[in-house]
Amino acid sequence: MEAPELTEKISDCLREGNVEEIKEMLSSIHTSEIATLLQSLDQEDRSKVLNSLDTETASQIILELEKEHRQEILSELDHEKIADIVEEMDSDDAADVISELPEDTAKVVLEKMPPEDVREVESLLQYPRDTAGGIMQAELVQVIHDSTVRDAINWIRLIADEVQDFNEIYVTDESDRLLGIVSLKRLILANPMTRVGEMMEPVAVTVTPYVDQEEVANIFKKYDIVSLPVVDERGRLLGRITADDVIDVITEEASEDIYRFAGAGEYVHPIYTPTLTRIKLRLPWLFLTLFGELFIAFVIAHSFKPTLQRVVVLAAFMPAIMATGGNVGLQATTVVIRGLGMGTITPGQALKVIVSEMRLGFSLGIICGIIAALIGALIGIHEPEVIKIALAIFIAMTSATIATAFMGAAEPLALHKLKFDPAAACGPFVTMFNDIFGSIVYLLIATVIF
Amino acid sequence: MEAPELTEKISDCLREGNVEEIKEMLSSIHTSEIATLLQSLDQEDRSKVLNSLDTETASQIILELEKEHRQEILSELDHEKIADIVEEMDSDDAADVISELPEDTAKVVLEKMPPEDVREVESLLQYPRDTAGGIMQAELVQVIHDSTVRDAINWIRLIADEVQDFNEIYVTDESDRLLGIVSLKRLILANPMTRVGEMMEPVAVTVTPYVDQEEVANIFKKYDIVSLPVVDERGRLLGRITADDVIDVITEEASEDIYRFAGAGEYVHPIYTPTLTRIKLRLPWLFLTLFGELFIAFVIAHSFKPTLQRVVVLAAFMPAIMATGGNVGLQATTVVIRGLGMGTITPGQALKVIVSEMRLGFSLGIICGIIAALIGALIGIHEPEVIKIALAIFIAMTSATIATAFMGAAEPLALHKLKFDPAAACGPFVTMFNDIFGSIVYLLIATVIF
Repeated sequence: MEAPELTEKISDCLREGNVEEIKEMLSSIHTSEIATLLQSLDQEDRSKVLNSLDTETASQIILELEKEHRQEILSELDHEKIADIVEEMDSDDAADVISELPEDTAKVVLEKMPPEDVREVESLLQYPRDTAGGIMQAELVQVIHDSTVRDAINWIRLIADEVQDFNEIYVTDESDRLLGIVSLKRLILANPMTRVGEMMEPVAVTVTPYVDQEEVANIFKKYDIVSLPVVDERGRLLGRITADDVIDVITEEASEDIYRFAGAGEYVHPIYTPTLTRIKLRLPWLFLTLFGELFIAFVIAHSFKPTLQRVVVLAAFMPAIMATGGNVGLQATTVVIRGLGMGTITPGQALKVIVSEMRLGFSLGIICGIIAALIGALIGIHEPEVIKIALAIFIAMTSATIATAFMGAAEPLALHKLKFDPAAACGPFVTMFNDIFGSIVYLLIATVIF
Repeated sequence: MEAPELTEKISDCLREGNVEEIKEMLSSIHTSEIATLLQSLDQEDRSKVLNSLDTETASQIILELEKEHRQEILSELDHEKIADIVEEMDSDDAADVISELPEDTAKVVLEKMPPEDVREVESLLQYPRDTAGGIMQAELVQVIHDSTVRDAINWIRLIADEVQDFNEIYVTDESDRLLGIVSLKRLILANPMTRVGEMMEPVAVTVTPYVDQEEVANIFKKYDIVSLPVVDERGRLLGRITADDVIDVITEEASEDIYRFAGAGEYVHPIYTPTLTRIKLRLPWLFLTLFGELFIAFVIAHSFKPTLQRVVVLAAFMPAIMATGGNVGLQATTVVIRGLGMGTITPGQALKVIVSEMRLGFSLGIICGIIAALIGALIGIHEPEVIKIALAIFIAMTSATIATAFMGAAEPLALHKLKFDPAAACGPFVTMFNDIFGSIVYLLIATVIF
């Protein structure tokens, strides 16, 4: 059944109060589709549908919702129901959802949860959301090094329901310090009386909880792993990060890069988000552009009017110089931001990268400059001072591309050095710098030449 | 030891011919770091280092190299060595590496490999690289439904060396049709005499081999899974895709989106890639911009010279209109491309999304238009026809933002509808369209008004 058809059927059932049939219909579709469906219903119907589902399904759906919808939908449920739903979740998801709740709701919900779960969730809540601690889960299988394989299997039997998916067990000493790992594959094949400490493999890599999630993602990529233990500074096991969480992190970080890049703020769904929210997200970047460009307008009107008045055709080439320079700068920024993000460009290579981008910008500028000057000469063939026009175009184009290549490469590297996110607003800033620099240099050169 | 220090030490050892010490030094660092190190050595040293390592380590390093380096380094090794190295790899990696080799080398290498491995690799080579078949591996654990748990464990014992990492076994019928899955966790806890067919769980989702890799990544995100079976159209098990491969896919696709977006071609390392290669990658996008903007120059010089000559200050506001419109268009494009890529915008929502972006573009245009017109009036306060200037700015700004919002949203949706990659070149095209539209509409309006 297609989504719109399903929505209609559900609405029908809701009107008729036929909860059983809704349950029946929803049982056959994936929770992520139910989530999408919920987002298209109005508040009343939404609550009815959610209340008709069992807690486990409801908890999965809540996790699939987009953040704003999750907050909205949870605010419509009573605290008891929220506590039940959150209890069903893995500790990392539970912590995320609770951190999104209004403070007083969170407090009441935590009071209604079993103390054991609360301890786990609270220990996770202490870490920022975008760190290893923020994305790790507390559920894992931990055994002491002198346990036998049989002990370990018995332990797994006991906690099998609580720890959902795992493919290795963590071997620690008596003070929880991580010593090694035994894969389930090895555990299955082992003699039941072997001690896990004797058969464990060394841990390839661990992280501490305050490591940034982008760094965590890079570790997964570099080591080709599907789970990663998190330990404190004394090596004690705190939790584990699984590949599915990292997939979410990578998607989220890539989107963040792209939105910042385009000056689009952050991702919100174009249909489900109120226009006012979207205006607020986008307007700051537009203002950056707008005021930068109005500054250019002011400078041109104030200082270069005589030049333009004398050779009005100069104005025709301003867009070409600004756009080409802007493009070169954006290319440099993209390559550097992405390289830093993926870890293929190291901060130690900063100088080399900047030089390399400037050399490339210069080459590109020469090529584009020659072409633009030639075409400029053709277009301005009837102008009395056509050679000077072509010369101004060429010099301005080349200067603009070198300058923006430098800015484009240096800005993200500098931000990275200063521990800021290199992707932060580089796109719009580089474009603005370039436009101001390109147009003013062009008119300055033209004024000098004429 | 830091990378430059290590490189120097290795160079010293190479000069002294001290292969043992190199081995010793490299044994303690991760293969991905050795790969980075290799890329900074010259050809002769590189071969020496690679030849000093055991085949397994060498094969891991080869996989860690960036593509151009891998091709270069492999071309320096003899076919026997390449065959040994490739044999160590999982079938999916082996197929990737072989597909990158020159055809005659690939043929010789395949001849030198064991027939069993060749069959696996050849069956993978038939699928395009960016499909489920291209990223799946043939190594997996498959058991017939009437096997007992004990049979399954014995089978795992037999193939444990060949199948590296797995956390579930696939249950099939006699003709390889996938029936269900048993996790290792359940297998460990089960009675040895239970039949796997009785304890298996249903398969949540499968893909066929020609499904696009971006679609595969979206399935991993949607279902929060860490491995996915690939079956043919008759449901027969062909292979499995693991989360670490998907992490690579997501990173690759996100980079592709970003580069296309910025008109930077594809990612190549700024230091390790020859300038000429990089010029070739970037120049086409620059030419797109350049010729678009030179066309604008031509139209301005040809048709709007009288208008500009009369009111030269109009030229000062051209950049502001072009840049603001460009920004709005880029914002719309970004949101739509990313939404399509992540599956949060469905093609069925196309019309709604376009309307929503145009409404937003209009709102943003009104706000920016009023500000620009007011500042334009201030800057042009001494002009005799200042009101007309402000009016031209306002109308042009608003028209430009609606038009680019439409283009920005509609272009990726149209490309997606036509089965092209929506990210393809949208950034540069939208910018160019906007610049041409914005500047010409502005001058047209100005010409009408004056």
